[in-house]
Amino acid sequence: MTAMFNRVTIIGVGLIGGSIARAMKKHKLCNDIVGYTRRENEVKKAVALGVIDRYETSVAEAVNGADLVIVAVPMGAFESMFRQMVGAVSPDTVISDVGSAKSSVVDAAKNVFGVLPPGLVPAHPIAGTEKSGVEASFDSLFENRCTIITPTEFSSESAVSLVSNFWQAIGAEVVRMSPEHHDLVLAATSHLPHVLAFSLVDTLSHMQEHSEIFRFAAGGFRDFTRIASSDPTMWRDICLNNKDAILASLKKYEEQLKKLEEAIAEQDGVKIEKIFSNAKNARDTHVIGG
Amino acid sequence: MTAMFNRVTIIGVGLIGGSIARAMKKHKLCNDIVGYTRRENEVKKAVALGVIDRYETSVAEAVNGADLVIVAVPMGAFESMFRQMVGAVSPDTVISDVGSAKSSVVDAAKNVFGVLPPGLVPAHPIAGTEKSGVEASFDSLFENRCTIITPTEFSSESAVSLVSNFWQAIGAEVVRMSPEHHDLVLAATSHLPHVLAFSLVDTLSHMQEHSEIFRFAAGGFRDFTRIASSDPTMWRDICLNNKDAILASLKKYEEQLKKLEEAIAEQDGVKIEKIFSNAKNARDTHVIGG
Repeated sequence: MTAMFNRVTIIGVGLIGGSIARAMKKHKLCNDIVGYTRRENEVKKAVALGVIDRYETSVAEAVNGADLVIVAVPMGAFESMFRQMVGAVSPDTVISDVGSAKSSVVDAAKNVFGVLPPGLVPAHPIAGTEKSGVEASFDSLFENRCTIITPTEFSSESAVSLVSNFWQAIGAEVVRMSPEHHDLVLAATSHLPHVLAFSLVDTLSHMQEHSEIFRFAAGGFRDFTRIASSDPTMWRDICLNNKDAILASLKKYEEQLKKLEEAIAEQDGVKIEKIFSNAKNARDTHVIGG
Repeated sequence: MTAMFNRVTIIGVGLIGGSIARAMKKHKLCNDIVGYTRRENEVKKAVALGVIDRYETSVAEAVNGADLVIVAVPMGAFESMFRQMVGAVSPDTVISDVGSAKSSVVDAAKNVFGVLPPGLVPAHPIAGTEKSGVEASFDSLFENRCTIITPTEFSSESAVSLVSNFWQAIGAEVVRMSPEHHDLVLAATSHLPHVLAFSLVDTLSHMQEHSEIFRFAAGGFRDFTRIASSDPTMWRDICLNNKDAILASLKKYEEQLKKLEEAIAEQDGVKIEKIFSNAKNARDTHVIGG
């Protein structure tokens, strides 16, 4: 049996990039996994841990001859990575990524390549932990999780198939949608909750009695604010790169919150209970796993 | 060794009231645990489960001769319960409760008794689960959890000691503060997060793509919205009974959220990261248990 790929290059071998490499090794998908990370000591660690086979010190050398390139860097670094690939990839080199916002990946590619390359098929695995770094990577991170692939209007069907097959081969369920639609859905389900949780903990930390407040935080509070322990830089980048969709869903949220606030101010028990019941029903119906 | 109490009466034998009774039995604190629940079949179930020793069908009969009365009914039912105790309790009968808001308990007692009874020592155990009903009760619910006791200016020190010793005897750490201060702290740490979570899930449920949104909800979303599965009636009552403190903390939250929204709209990465970092630091510093 021959492997699915001869050479795969991972740009950014952290939690996600490292987990992709580990999963490829587990499923014997690739003969040669090449890594690049901006900081050389990080990518050396990935080799030492056996996560990747070898590394290069430039993006151009790393992507040279790859059947598939996966960009797994912070959102803010995409354009710079694409720029360093110019000349080293052909329009048909299959390039995918793991960024949390997709329109901005498409925009970065447009800025660099002019015309969107047929080989570019952006993707977003809905998986991760609060941790970061290659030490935190593990080979089952994508199993039974969703990966959304967001082909552009210029993506070739062969590239789309290859990227889709790749994610399925490491255990993910693949769903296809447009970059814009992805950004709308993820703004609501992931980016908005993070913004709200960061803002809540920030608000409480400015209150006079803040140490007392945190002292009496029970389990509900711990769960609710867990995502406020996420990486601030990563989430800053997501906010900057999915600005419009996040602001739109935030606007809707603020409108609904105002309605609830008015109901509380007016002691309108019927309206309050209606909002709470609707929320409970929606969550109990749609969110699996308690 | 004689038990701490001869007779304790629990008004409202649900998750919390039932867990108090079970904990008293475990620690052999009481010879006779009497229960009252508005719906007779509920309190019969509590007897059948061995949670309480016996029940009465009126509040007046239930509290008759009790060394300690614990009111564990929804916030909206306090005034009615107090009213049914008139004539059956003396001013020195020690009465405590488990309500999530404390000023409104004090107000309800004032409305009914005129002068606040020296035996009244409101309390709030910071413990619970998303479940409800006596079937969900268990004897270790209060162990190593905080119970806030909020004596009024009229509470006798002997009643305060007795209530404090009672909670410690079933495993709780007891903290004392004023009813008003309690309401401020709990509004921030518990009531506000519930309001925000209910409102978020409500907002998403009204979005056109709501079934898709929930489908792509990952672990962070599950944690963040877990409290939106709480009992809508209970939380309606909490909103009605701690209105002022909740509205005040909601106002502060909305102001901070506006600042973050502006920073996102202005693409001000430095400001966004500062807010996120401050939140992460506060949570990592103050919230124990990840």
